[in-house]
Amino acid sequence: MQLKIALLGGDGIGPEVLAQSVKCLKAIEETFNHRFEFVEAPFGAIAMTGSGRPLPDETLALCQEADAILFGAIGALDYDNNPEAKVRPEQGLLRLRKELGLFASIRPIKMFPAFLENSPLKRNIVDHTDLVIFRELTGGIYFGKKTLSEDGTTASDLCSYSESEISRIAHLAFKAAKKRRKKVTLVDKANVLESSRLWRKTVTNIAQSYPDISFECLFIDNAAVQMMLNPRQFDVILTDNMFGDILSDQGSVILGSVGLLPSASVGLENAMFEPFHGSYPQAKGKNIANPVASILSSAMLLQHFGLDEEANAIVAAVHKSFVKKVVTTDVLGSSKYGTDYVGDFISENI
Amino acid sequence: MQLKIALLGGDGIGPEVLAQSVKCLKAIEETFNHRFEFVEAPFGAIAMTGSGRPLPDETLALCQEADAILFGAIGALDYDNNPEAKVRPEQGLLRLRKELGLFASIRPIKMFPAFLENSPLKRNIVDHTDLVIFRELTGGIYFGKKTLSEDGTTASDLCSYSESEISRIAHLAFKAAKKRRKKVTLVDKANVLESSRLWRKTVTNIAQSYPDISFECLFIDNAAVQMMLNPRQFDVILTDNMFGDILSDQGSVILGSVGLLPSASVGLENAMFEPFHGSYPQAKGKNIANPVASILSSAMLLQHFGLDEEANAIVAAVHKSFVKKVVTTDVLGSSKYGTDYVGDFISENI
Ligand SMILES: CC(C)[C@H](C(=O)O)[C@@H](O)C(=O)O
Ligand SMILES: CC(C)[C@H](C(=O)O)[C@@H](O)C(=O)O
Repeated sequence: MQLKIALLGGDGIGPEVLAQSVKCLKAIEETFNHRFEFVEAPFGAIAMTGSGRPLPDETLALCQEADAILFGAIGALDYDNNPEAKVRPEQGLLRLRKELGLFASIRPIKMFPAFLENSPLKRNIVDHTDLVIFRELTGGIYFGKKTLSEDGTTASDLCSYSESEISRIAHLAFKAAKKRRKKVTLVDKANVLESSRLWRKTVTNIAQSYPDISFECLFIDNAAVQMMLNPRQFDVILTDNMFGDILSDQGSVILGSVGLLPSASVGLENAMFEPFHGSYPQAKGKNIANPVASILSSAMLLQHFGLDEEANAIVAAVHKSFVKKVVTTDVLGSSKYGTDYVGDFISENI
Repeated sequence: MQLKIALLGGDGIGPEVLAQSVKCLKAIEETFNHRFEFVEAPFGAIAMTGSGRPLPDETLALCQEADAILFGAIGALDYDNNPEAKVRPEQGLLRLRKELGLFASIRPIKMFPAFLENSPLKRNIVDHTDLVIFRELTGGIYFGKKTLSEDGTTASDLCSYSESEISRIAHLAFKAAKKRRKKVTLVDKANVLESSRLWRKTVTNIAQSYPDISFECLFIDNAAVQMMLNPRQFDVILTDNMFGDILSDQGSVILGSVGLLPSASVGLENAMFEPFHGSYPQAKGKNIANPVASILSSAMLLQHFGLDEEANAIVAAVHKSFVKKVVTTDVLGSSKYGTDYVGDFISENI
């Protein structure tokens, strides 16, 4: 297969972990006789230094024509701590999601038995956790109209959803549940929000056309509780942009392995693959970042194109690195292996 | 002291747990020679059956003239599962908060050493957790304009905040921190939301007038992670209405004792005291609900009026019930004691 892959390293540890994914994809290319063309492009705070814009036009154009995008991470402390910054790196990511129509973020949260002890939760609670969050990614309060009054004393964000935005991701979630344990949980705040009531109404209707899937609804506050008390109860979680942001980060941490989880953001014509974790600027350049989340996101990329055997080869090599304890410090508490070394080990074992 | 206390039992287990608080307050009245006048009023789904309204005018009027309000819980399954209901019980609670100007919900989350093993988190993580959440309660997306398009296919909620709404609760939080471990953490999503940036700017300015308090900011997704990895890092958490809803429920569950935590909702002229937990309709009338959260909220009521000795008497009696294992099933996994018995035990030990 021939694939053109856009590489957006982004900020902080993004470029370092992405480089390890590229090693792995090159190993796949060779072993399985594919042709991958990699094109790097500036994105995030790093792009702002040159162009003043986190998503330069050329970067967007590249992403539009590429078959897929591998993305590292975005965000920098300078902007986080400056509420008055007019432009900020995250806007680049939000615009990219919107322009490419990446309306569904798919975030699998599955226990790695090797790291059961790393979970902050007790073993009997978290063992065998295997769920996937479908987070709506191009609507809601992230993209609603924002206002700041002229005197700067009042600010607002609009959370708006349409039936069609809700139903397209709902169908993805129900279809995914068919191939899994056949359960969908909608998370909303329908006792307070009008937009949540539209979610509940729309998804309840859709559920009727999937009679073999069991369907339930939870308020977000209760979902955050259930995620800690009994994460095994969940199979597919469906939720909006803001709740999905919170719940997926919460979900990732119950595994005790924020550095290990990949995700996919998909639309009708494009797809982007990225780690769960953020840019972690404090670790930048130190060769300590865990490359596994990014490497597994490149496996998700291969899967997206039906290259299951290839994806499995990456996953197997990652598991080998776990067994041999060739992992970064975050996973074991201490380790002599750096980002680079772990990336080499995994790619050489493909 | 003479106090007129409005009693709003509300829905589900609300009235049952509230009745135990009243027993305790009556014991205090007698022992310490106070005069408490209790007046019950309908509220929630139960009030809708009669008047069609979750907050009848007479109930509101009573709350306005009372010195304080003791509240049970609100919410019923019929409404939760009906996204088309025009009126719902929660609206009564939201309106009550707004009409009384209860702009700050204060939710202390402190480990009970006796129940350390109940936490879903590992002991070394959660031990000695002692934080308090200041949640803004009368603004944000809970109260912003809601719309539903005429054809019912688009819905929206507005999240709006003004500087003055933010600063009045921020000052409460900083003042509380002065008497505690001198740290305030603002939780927001300033990398995405305009309203969050107003929070960050306003609170950062206010922080400068409290030079002895250390101040930091966290994004909500990261805060949800930190709450599970290291809750001890927090002293006072300050946040908006929606994030506070999620984070406080998440915080309560790390203690493994959702049935034990009280809260206060305060304004300039009124104050309401209530358990963290919800109406738990499944347990209604079964005499299994844990009354301790409600009983401890009556202790917060006493404290609010400077009756520290009295509040301590309640807390001491609750601790005695822990030591003697006179607790409900939720706490011990199984127990022969019901709601009523536990309430009797605690009130008799005051
Ligand atoms: C960087 C930030 C804008 C982003 C989000 O909130 O969507 C991130 O937290 C994520 O979850 O992908
Ligand atoms: C009942 C509901 C409206 C309420 C809220 O979301 O504020 C509750 O969850 C709470 O936290 O007090």
